[in-house]
Amino acid sequence: MSEVQEKSPLWGGRFRKQLHPDAKKFSSSIASDKRLAEDDIDGSIAHVTMLGECGVVPKSESDQIVNALKQIKEEIISGKLILSDQSEDVHLAIEEILTERVSAVGGKLHTARSRNDQVALDQRLFLRKAIKGLQSSVEGLQLSLTTKAEENEGTIIPGYTHMRRAQPILLAHHLLAYVSMFGRDGERLSDCYKRVDLSPLGAAAFAGTSFAINRKSVASQLGFSDIVYNSVDAVSDRDYLIEIASVCSILMMHLSRMAEELILWSTVEFGFVEMDDSISTGSSIMPQKKNPDIAELVRGKTGRVYGSLMNLLTIMKGLPLAYNRDMQCDKEPMFEVIDTTADCLTMMKLVVENISFNTERLKQTLQDGYLTATEVADYLVRKGETFREAHRITGELVGHCAGNEIHFSALDLVKLQSFSERFTEDVFDILDPERSILLKASEGSSSHESVEAQLTYWKNKLQ
Amino acid sequence: MSEVQEKSPLWGGRFRKQLHPDAKKFSSSIASDKRLAEDDIDGSIAHVTMLGECGVVPKSESDQIVNALKQIKEEIISGKLILSDQSEDVHLAIEEILTERVSAVGGKLHTARSRNDQVALDQRLFLRKAIKGLQSSVEGLQLSLTTKAEENEGTIIPGYTHMRRAQPILLAHHLLAYVSMFGRDGERLSDCYKRVDLSPLGAAAFAGTSFAINRKSVASQLGFSDIVYNSVDAVSDRDYLIEIASVCSILMMHLSRMAEELILWSTVEFGFVEMDDSISTGSSIMPQKKNPDIAELVRGKTGRVYGSLMNLLTIMKGLPLAYNRDMQCDKEPMFEVIDTTADCLTMMKLVVENISFNTERLKQTLQDGYLTATEVADYLVRKGETFREAHRITGELVGHCAGNEIHFSALDLVKLQSFSERFTEDVFDILDPERSILLKASEGSSSHESVEAQLTYWKNKLQ
Amino acid sequence: MSEVQEKSPLWGGRFRKQLHPDAKKFSSSIASDKRLAEDDIDGSIAHVTMLGECGVVPKSESDQIVNALKQIKEEIISGKLILSDQSEDVHLAIEEILTERVSAVGGKLHTARSRNDQVALDQRLFLRKAIKGLQSSVEGLQLSLTTKAEENEGTIIPGYTHMRRAQPILLAHHLLAYVSMFGRDGERLSDCYKRVDLSPLGAAAFAGTSFAINRKSVASQLGFSDIVYNSVDAVSDRDYLIEIASVCSILMMHLSRMAEELILWSTVEFGFVEMDDSISTGSSIMPQKKNPDIAELVRGKTGRVYGSLMNLLTIMKGLPLAYNRDMQCDKEPMFEVIDTTADCLTMMKLVVENISFNTERLKQTLQDGYLTATEVADYLVRKGETFREAHRITGELVGHCAGNEIHFSALDLVKLQSFSERFTEDVFDILDPERSILLKASEGSSSHESVEAQLTYWKNKLQ
Amino acid sequence: MSEVQEKSPLWGGRFRKQLHPDAKKFSSSIASDKRLAEDDIDGSIAHVTMLGECGVVPKSESDQIVNALKQIKEEIISGKLILSDQSEDVHLAIEEILTERVSAVGGKLHTARSRNDQVALDQRLFLRKAIKGLQSSVEGLQLSLTTKAEENEGTIIPGYTHMRRAQPILLAHHLLAYVSMFGRDGERLSDCYKRVDLSPLGAAAFAGTSFAINRKSVASQLGFSDIVYNSVDAVSDRDYLIEIASVCSILMMHLSRMAEELILWSTVEFGFVEMDDSISTGSSIMPQKKNPDIAELVRGKTGRVYGSLMNLLTIMKGLPLAYNRDMQCDKEPMFEVIDTTADCLTMMKLVVENISFNTERLKQTLQDGYLTATEVADYLVRKGETFREAHRITGELVGHCAGNEIHFSALDLVKLQSFSERFTEDVFDILDPERSILLKASEGSSSHESVEAQLTYWKNKLQ
Repeated sequence: MSEVQEKSPLWGGRFRKQLHPDAKKFSSSIASDKRLAEDDIDGSIAHVTMLGECGVVPKSESDQIVNALKQIKEEIISGKLILSDQSEDVHLAIEEILTERVSAVGGKLHTARSRNDQVALDQRLFLRKAIKGLQSSVEGLQLSLTTKAEENEGTIIPGYTHMRRAQPILLAHHLLAYVSMFGRDGERLSDCYKRVDLSPLGAAAFAGTSFAINRKSVASQLGFSDIVYNSVDAVSDRDYLIEIASVCSILMMHLSRMAEELILWSTVEFGFVEMDDSISTGSSIMPQKKNPDIAELVRGKTGRVYGSLMNLLTIMKGLPLAYNRDMQCDKEPMFEVIDTTADCLTMMKLVVENISFNTERLKQTLQDGYLTATEVADYLVRKGETFREAHRITGELVGHCAGNEIHFSALDLVKLQSFSERFTEDVFDILDPERSILLKASEGSSSHESVEAQLTYWKNKLQ
Repeated sequence: MSEVQEKSPLWGGRFRKQLHPDAKKFSSSIASDKRLAEDDIDGSIAHVTMLGECGVVPKSESDQIVNALKQIKEEIISGKLILSDQSEDVHLAIEEILTERVSAVGGKLHTARSRNDQVALDQRLFLRKAIKGLQSSVEGLQLSLTTKAEENEGTIIPGYTHMRRAQPILLAHHLLAYVSMFGRDGERLSDCYKRVDLSPLGAAAFAGTSFAINRKSVASQLGFSDIVYNSVDAVSDRDYLIEIASVCSILMMHLSRMAEELILWSTVEFGFVEMDDSISTGSSIMPQKKNPDIAELVRGKTGRVYGSLMNLLTIMKGLPLAYNRDMQCDKEPMFEVIDTTADCLTMMKLVVENISFNTERLKQTLQDGYLTATEVADYLVRKGETFREAHRITGELVGHCAGNEIHFSALDLVKLQSFSERFTEDVFDILDPERSILLKASEGSSSHESVEAQLTYWKNKLQ
Repeated sequence: MSEVQEKSPLWGGRFRKQLHPDAKKFSSSIASDKRLAEDDIDGSIAHVTMLGECGVVPKSESDQIVNALKQIKEEIISGKLILSDQSEDVHLAIEEILTERVSAVGGKLHTARSRNDQVALDQRLFLRKAIKGLQSSVEGLQLSLTTKAEENEGTIIPGYTHMRRAQPILLAHHLLAYVSMFGRDGERLSDCYKRVDLSPLGAAAFAGTSFAINRKSVASQLGFSDIVYNSVDAVSDRDYLIEIASVCSILMMHLSRMAEELILWSTVEFGFVEMDDSISTGSSIMPQKKNPDIAELVRGKTGRVYGSLMNLLTIMKGLPLAYNRDMQCDKEPMFEVIDTTADCLTMMKLVVENISFNTERLKQTLQDGYLTATEVADYLVRKGETFREAHRITGELVGHCAGNEIHFSALDLVKLQSFSERFTEDVFDILDPERSILLKASEGSSSHESVEAQLTYWKNKLQ
Repeated sequence: MSEVQEKSPLWGGRFRKQLHPDAKKFSSSIASDKRLAEDDIDGSIAHVTMLGECGVVPKSESDQIVNALKQIKEEIISGKLILSDQSEDVHLAIEEILTERVSAVGGKLHTARSRNDQVALDQRLFLRKAIKGLQSSVEGLQLSLTTKAEENEGTIIPGYTHMRRAQPILLAHHLLAYVSMFGRDGERLSDCYKRVDLSPLGAAAFAGTSFAINRKSVASQLGFSDIVYNSVDAVSDRDYLIEIASVCSILMMHLSRMAEELILWSTVEFGFVEMDDSISTGSSIMPQKKNPDIAELVRGKTGRVYGSLMNLLTIMKGLPLAYNRDMQCDKEPMFEVIDTTADCLTMMKLVVENISFNTERLKQTLQDGYLTATEVADYLVRKGETFREAHRITGELVGHCAGNEIHFSALDLVKLQSFSERFTEDVFDILDPERSILLKASEGSSSHESVEAQLTYWKNKLQ
């Protein structure tokens, strides 16, 4: 994008030579921005309709242009018309086609407009749809997770910290942690949308225009909530791109954590999860392999979104106002951020729908690792022990069991009382992982009650 | 941060050796997290108060702990008490002091709590204040810019695209573009604040607790709007850090653009701006130098915030739930993001308050560069010319003037009409940069009316 | 890339379902890696030739495969054969075509090889050529700069620090600073090449193979200096990609500095440089504009290379050995780094060749700004003054001139001696920027002698 | 760093106001650069010694300065002298102390020097030592790994791809893959060292100096291999910082992979590795926990080095020559890169020295997962089967075993021959993981012979 055109007639006495062909190719953006063709046409239709309404262009001519643009858009959608890579950018490509069709009248389309505000408009139109799409994909993934949580409501897994078994929790509670994380991603997408949903058109090159145009009419036709008021800001700003790249970076980070966890859980060593053949691949060299490629690719693609964020931040660093040609380099990272994130959301939904939990294996893991040690200490505190003392006692108990290679389940009351006289019959509710879950009392904890509340909340929200 | 303590008594039979002294030093976070001491104490006071209310700890004991903690906080603020770098982290350092003062009772403070939820709480308490501070600094800078805009309301500057003079605009309009940019930063800070302003306490290690605690009471005491519901999410999440780092990266990008522009404008070549001695430095080797160091440092420090964002994103990539020790590495980038951004905002406010515009020089630059050429083309369009033809004619006019090294102001009507008969006497309103400003008609343009509207808007908003 | 193939026959009893079509599309890499087709075939030819030599495959069959592969390569080069996007990756696409042509014998190509070592080989073959290409482009740019320096050998410019005029220097010396910078880039490319120039083939999946292959024969056929010895390392390593991305990031940083400077220098405010029309563009809306788009785009594209570096570093962070599917995501950043850097080098060469220096304007700028103040202070030191005192005196002298708005050239000896009696007639050699250059005495300084030495050095080196 | 000093006397008529106190604080770098004090003094001693030799300063005076500087250095080392945070930077701090001690003569130290070349010198002196230190730490880690490999020479582990068991390999071979990786890091450090090991001193502000100094004498005194020739380049360049940050980023990536692997291997699920108590920590809340904190912190600290690299790249993007104050912001990332990498290398060495392998568990894992399936297919190829057919047969064999939940070891020859008549008695060498290792024939493979060769190579190299 730039305020450029290499056809000499437009520049009269100023230029005596054509742009060098290599430079022309280097500066062309049509290869990437042609994807904005429909948005560009939608913007042009709204613009010229307004010009007609305001009398800047005769109504009959604006109608003629609108009709031609609609026709061009249809032809592009149907594949009948393909934009040439010879044009400098999508804006000129379409204007050239228009002018071929309606001759001189086509030249009126660009009245009171510059490519500076035009490209910002196209990006915002594109991003509005993209954000809506991402929101829908996020909700789709949340729904799959919620469904999977509900289906496995009674299942208990060992929760981990430091990649070490720590305490028993409900699988559903764990899955709902991801639903919460993606809930924040949804909020951030909404917040970002507010700042995308503003029309920059009418800012022209950056100073506004002396034509008596109606910026709000254009905004309203295109469904924008308002205009970007200050005209210099309207063309200099790329916050909306960086913000969506940031939001998607955090989202991808969440997906990378979930991918890592599913890869781990589906190893033969963990054995918690079985991935369906439809999301697994084998090896052409090792016949026994079944690989979690989809999850691995999601984890790997995180780098692409992080990198695009850094790309955009670098482009904009230290650029004086208003428009600089550097800003043309924003298309590739924009598309990469949106496409990568959208694909990965869809893929993780597919993964979630095609995993099953190995409940036998999970049951068995709960016996190892003294997962209820924390509950034992808390039990002693409730019985009147100080926290530190309770801790010391439980530590000794674990040491005793580990030394003798026995589980907590092998302890009887007499043995327990040899560590503390405070132990009574009710300690066995604590020692057993499944029963200990029932004792969780705090809001938002891994209790059945809390999980029920979360399931209800999310099912309502996501409907 | 971690669930760690190297004093053997706490772990009983499990550990037979002390942590290696180098490993102990390597894993200690006290050097950076001691800055959270006051937040940590505030959180502990709320926690133990709630424990007392709920009967988890006898009221008399919770009162005793609260009083001791208040005392410790006061001593830290007054500098009477300095936390030793020997402790593993700020949480243990304070608990150790507490226990010295109230003996065994101190051990009850950590009931129904883990360092996992505690550190998340401390960070959120810190960030709430930090965000409020940043918002206030942003508004301060906006106000300085608005004031500067108002003081220079009549001043016209050449607006730039591609670092080339493009069209005349009101200086105030240009400065208000920055006010708009920082306005978005303020919105993003508010949006981020919503997600910071939630209490994670009570999530304990990650599964919640079997003590009948009241999470919302703690949240309410500390002024949080709600709790982070899901306990696994509450301790695994660092979105709030990454989001603030993203918001500050965009903010710093804005500051870097403004810094670049002020450095440019204050060169002898541009000569638009004079920086006061109070924000300039000289050279110990070149006696004639006057350097814009403050603006340069702001531009340079952009890298620090970008780098911290990348640091945080990298840390969290691919980490399975719930807490992992990697997350301890989040303190340094958190403080760097906040401190750097806060300092740079303060400094840019100082810079804005200490620049003056060289109106003579600005007036003179408006004559060069045929800045009103766009207006001439638009004039011809209004007179009935098609856009393309109007453009061609203006191009030839510019070519003629450039070839003869004359300004537009040297043209008389006869000469103008030799290019197009549509030129009449009113064209001189267009040719003159100062008068052409008066013709800007679009909303948000560089017209006096638009600038008035913006000044009114921002002055109301920022009061 | 992965060890994957979705055709069920290969996996027999292990898989009961096909890969989901969306997952298949998501995991396909053919769209990006088909660019490696020729390298892939070169590698396969070397591999199967060796298999024939070693008797792993009968010589007649290896000959048959080699001939078919050569034919396929020719057809791809000539455009007769186009790889389908239906294949999973370039390796399978070519193997499939081969098998169609030579039937069952084609299946022997993959003996003692995995796609893990194959893709690493392809990348290394690609990068060897890419690095050679970059080195040549770097040298091309250095030569253009050297030529430009030589052509402008007598020209003096104001050197800058803090974007403020500081001291007079020879333009050639300034341009040669860039030649030095690019010289280091060349060295880094060479250093990186050493580590790229090793053959991983024969590592198979990661453990090596029980076939009695000759890895060094393959390496030798392909012109590699050696093999990557450890087979696990051979397929797990992507250092060569990250290293080239780092090297190119520094290179792009250099180009961004040069671009920034040329944009500045070609503003009307600086006026040092004129850019030829062939590297400039106009504005479709502002007829008087002449924009430095090529330099701006180079500056902007810096972000792409930085972002790709971050992409690669993120992908590899925390990946356990050996191959993981995440590593397939390395193709896009690899191509982006190479293509962007190569294009920008070519473009900057074009820019350098199409700029001319405005010597009149440069001459004039030397009179402003008391550029020789440092020399005056040094002069006084040589006359016996202490450094501090010399500085103070010169400061007063500058203050006097600035207050009276006169240049140094307006001072006579009497006036000078009123500041210090040490001034004698020879001070005028110092005060005059052109003559002061002649006094530079240190190695590598901006003296004619030093510039001559540099020109000689680089012209010899670059021939 | 900058050419700045706020004491008004130095600037005479130019400045009328002091720098604003907040701006002074903001622009001070003493808090970070005071760490360069010894390097700064070493550089000054060499500089003034040369000034004495060249007659720029009388020998008696240069001796006086040298002696005072030596004294100051000793006092700093011994802790007797502490640099005040009131000075602007380390250079002025030391010069101020010097001047207090030797009065006016001290003012001669800065003759023919600027802080621009001085700070570059200090950084290069610091980095030379830092690189040597890193190289030594890298070698230390390599040696620990080599020793660990040797101690476990006979141990076989399941090698992984896609985090799935793939083929049996020698543990030593796996560990030696890391030794190879770190070997490349060592090479890169050496390559980088070449470009650090050049003296910039004598470039002065950027133009060189008219004093007849001897740059090579300074270089030689300080042990540099040569000078940075071009004076503009000498002060504008920060490649050496970015290059070391890149090298350390790759190094940290390697460490993060090793950390991830050790964390995985030491889970109860994998159970391959036992971490000694001296490198593990427990939990204050969960008495049964033993956490791999050191490895986790290393993995997390990767972000810091990546972030610092991005910081430096951002700072330098688009900066025109020569020195700009932005470059002062390079100290923090420089120290962070060096300190973090050095610490993590030391810690990983400690970890390697304090792990032991659970050979029983490893032996048992080899029976699962049909790890020798690839060897079976290769066996059939050697017996005359085509590759594809061999693969199909092996796939069916795995399917049969998996369906019946038996290991390969449960198969007898009759059963095997029902899949292919090519199976004969020698297939049992292939089916058994331990014996199959013996068949690896390719260079650099996981054979005993290859491992022996590697051990010999590295032990020689690292001695």
